[in-house]
Amino acid sequence: MKTILVIGAGRSATVLIDYLLKTAVTLDWNVLVADANKTLADEKVEGHDRGTAFQLDVNDESTRKELISRADIVASLLPAHLHHIVAQDCIELCKHLVTASYVNSQMLKLNEAAKNANLIFMGEMGLDPGIDHMSAVQQIDKIRDEGGKLTAFKSYAGGLVADACDGDNPWRYKFTWNPRNVVLAGQGTAQYYEHGEYKYIPYSRLFKQYELVDVPGSGVYEAYANRDSLLYRSAYRLSDIPTIKRMTLRKKGFCDAWSALVDLGLTDDTYPIVDSEHLTYRQLVNAYLSSRTEGQTMRHAVAEFLGLGQSNTVLDKLEWVGLFDDKKIGLKKASPAQILQHLLLQKWTLEKDDRDLIVMQHEFEFILNNKKHRRISTMLLEGEDNIHTGMAKLVGLPVGIFVKLIAEGNVKQAGVHIPVSPEVYTPVLKELEEYGVIFKEQDISLD
Amino acid sequence: MKTILVIGAGRSATVLIDYLLKTAVTLDWNVLVADANKTLADEKVEGHDRGTAFQLDVNDESTRKELISRADIVASLLPAHLHHIVAQDCIELCKHLVTASYVNSQMLKLNEAAKNANLIFMGEMGLDPGIDHMSAVQQIDKIRDEGGKLTAFKSYAGGLVADACDGDNPWRYKFTWNPRNVVLAGQGTAQYYEHGEYKYIPYSRLFKQYELVDVPGSGVYEAYANRDSLLYRSAYRLSDIPTIKRMTLRKKGFCDAWSALVDLGLTDDTYPIVDSEHLTYRQLVNAYLSSRTEGQTMRHAVAEFLGLGQSNTVLDKLEWVGLFDDKKIGLKKASPAQILQHLLLQKWTLEKDDRDLIVMQHEFEFILNNKKHRRISTMLLEGEDNIHTGMAKLVGLPVGIFVKLIAEGNVKQAGVHIPVSPEVYTPVLKELEEYGVIFKEQDISLD
Repeated sequence: MKTILVIGAGRSATVLIDYLLKTAVTLDWNVLVADANKTLADEKVEGHDRGTAFQLDVNDESTRKELISRADIVASLLPAHLHHIVAQDCIELCKHLVTASYVNSQMLKLNEAAKNANLIFMGEMGLDPGIDHMSAVQQIDKIRDEGGKLTAFKSYAGGLVADACDGDNPWRYKFTWNPRNVVLAGQGTAQYYEHGEYKYIPYSRLFKQYELVDVPGSGVYEAYANRDSLLYRSAYRLSDIPTIKRMTLRKKGFCDAWSALVDLGLTDDTYPIVDSEHLTYRQLVNAYLSSRTEGQTMRHAVAEFLGLGQSNTVLDKLEWVGLFDDKKIGLKKASPAQILQHLLLQKWTLEKDDRDLIVMQHEFEFILNNKKHRRISTMLLEGEDNIHTGMAKLVGLPVGIFVKLIAEGNVKQAGVHIPVSPEVYTPVLKELEEYGVIFKEQDISLD
Repeated sequence: MKTILVIGAGRSATVLIDYLLKTAVTLDWNVLVADANKTLADEKVEGHDRGTAFQLDVNDESTRKELISRADIVASLLPAHLHHIVAQDCIELCKHLVTASYVNSQMLKLNEAAKNANLIFMGEMGLDPGIDHMSAVQQIDKIRDEGGKLTAFKSYAGGLVADACDGDNPWRYKFTWNPRNVVLAGQGTAQYYEHGEYKYIPYSRLFKQYELVDVPGSGVYEAYANRDSLLYRSAYRLSDIPTIKRMTLRKKGFCDAWSALVDLGLTDDTYPIVDSEHLTYRQLVNAYLSSRTEGQTMRHAVAEFLGLGQSNTVLDKLEWVGLFDDKKIGLKKASPAQILQHLLLQKWTLEKDDRDLIVMQHEFEFILNNKKHRRISTMLLEGEDNIHTGMAKLVGLPVGIFVKLIAEGNVKQAGVHIPVSPEVYTPVLKELEEYGVIFKEQDISLD
């Protein structure tokens, strides 16, 4: 009888815990669910006879180790910076570990220790990162097996909202994931490789240099460069490819408006606004304009500042969010980004019946029999409501499926990994199909 | 007999040490000069019978404390982040301390301890910060004494190069101070207060939102906002003033060209360029352009990218620096800012006979007898050559003069201070006049 420990029972854990409890019945498992908030853990277990809820402060070493020692496999849905505490215990207590977060250098340092203990530490086993890796590398391997030589790989992914649920929201975007990460998205410098050249996009230009991408069965989206694409050249076994670029999708109109927020300075998280508690949103925006706005509407002043016509839809979006309102911010010592997040949370929250929309598309260019081809592989998936989101499903299910693979003894790898080997992606993607995660391919001859 | 210890004998210490040695003869002092590089200290002392040179690694506690214990007053010209080590010793060993660096929170924490030991810890006693504080507050106090009510204060300062020494340099700028600080200048967000409103300028716009300022006797300069002007509202006793803004001066044409470097991404110091060692400058610039440059000159491609006409002088400046050249960078794992600094060091270095130019101007607006006035106070000073620069003089002399004030028992203040009280600014500014530091006032009626 196997025991699975899930640490973290927040919103993103719902689908994972449901999956594990359902599987526990057929495979004779126990599922332990631990969270700092015991009520959350209780709600997720819902009295299921295979599940037990625990209160766990992750900094409480004795309780943490006691719980981990009872498990065979640990699935951590903690915030990314806390995984390493659990990972250390897993080494010490000889337990496998699965997370949906990016593998960082702290985690990588445990590679040898995990290998020596014959343990698998699987990271990036969610949606993005996760399903993106698996579905991309599956196609890459397939094209190579067919004798194709890859010349370009571009990958697009977005956590959006179904068109029918846009309502009157001119941004056509709502939070379906960590709002803070959405507000800070792209800070730093995006890096990719194109036509054999390194390319960099500083944050100040990121939301200006977007591409338009046609997603069959869904429409045209905006795509901006996603972090450091170079990292995946070797992981995807594409070290020689002349073009590799990973991008994030938004609906049309989003990037120009978000870029206006960046230009104004409202996404900066590095310093507090003086008197932020007593200022209004209108005063905050005014503080970033270079000229005086007396006798001008704020819309007019911002239009002038951004060099836009007054009826530009970028201004509609800023106005709709409430940035021109004489309403008090009411947050003490808040950074511009914190203030923006606070405002957006009142506007971009999924309503009960809103369905989110996951869009993922890979584009491969390759030469086969001296002919140029393009293959497009597309996956679209809508959530059910604001709890059973597509996002929660596609983050939770890969973790659950991979936990099952380990429990069933079907994983031979040891060490710290991301899901890019056939042994992993083949069974996980196969089972994901049962849940509607279906990639449709389309081949086009470029000759 | 007083003993003065100078820690740090680099270029910026030349004038200070000359001043102290000269004064030592008349006032019967000993001057100890310590540097990590003993040769530097020897060169500065030049066998003067009042001076002794020492080798000092500032992390070597016993030598450091031994030297400090022999002194009555310590002048630290160490890099700013090292002052606190010396400051701690000064508390412990009961010694006064003078620096030309910004007073940071670490230094401020020693305020109570310094007060209790009746020690003066004077920071920001150089040019900018230093002479700017003293000359501004002297005028502020004067206007107030005359019965004026201040409504606006703007202060401008620049370390430039004399027009006659521009040569063929289209930037009309050379390094007269720490090159790294020049390349990173303005990163973060500038803050000031204007017409009763807080104003912020993000780095991405800093070199676009410059003002033109007319400096009597010198010409028109560009001025961009300098760091956080709000910090000085209370120090300058201007808490109620509706406008306070400190700015940095450059010659005309500089800001547009530097802004192009910022827009491209070449001043970023947060990540290394992949393969920086093997790339050429041209390839580096190309990595920041969004489109391919095949069949285009780099000048043409950059012009298009920046939205400039091909004969725009911004492009002349980038080209002159060597950014379009097919020359290898040759620096390993270097950030864009490090690469840019490396290139500029070959172009912006003061030649032996080059004279630098210090420009400082304060503008005060005030109401006196129900009438609006503007007072402009201007100081211009040229250096002698590339060693005896105006910069070295105006950083070193205030430190030296203040050391003398302490030694002569003319400082009653205790604790951590910046030079904004009449007890300090009156004698220091008075003696500085002997060295050519003369502020000329000009009053204009605004009614």
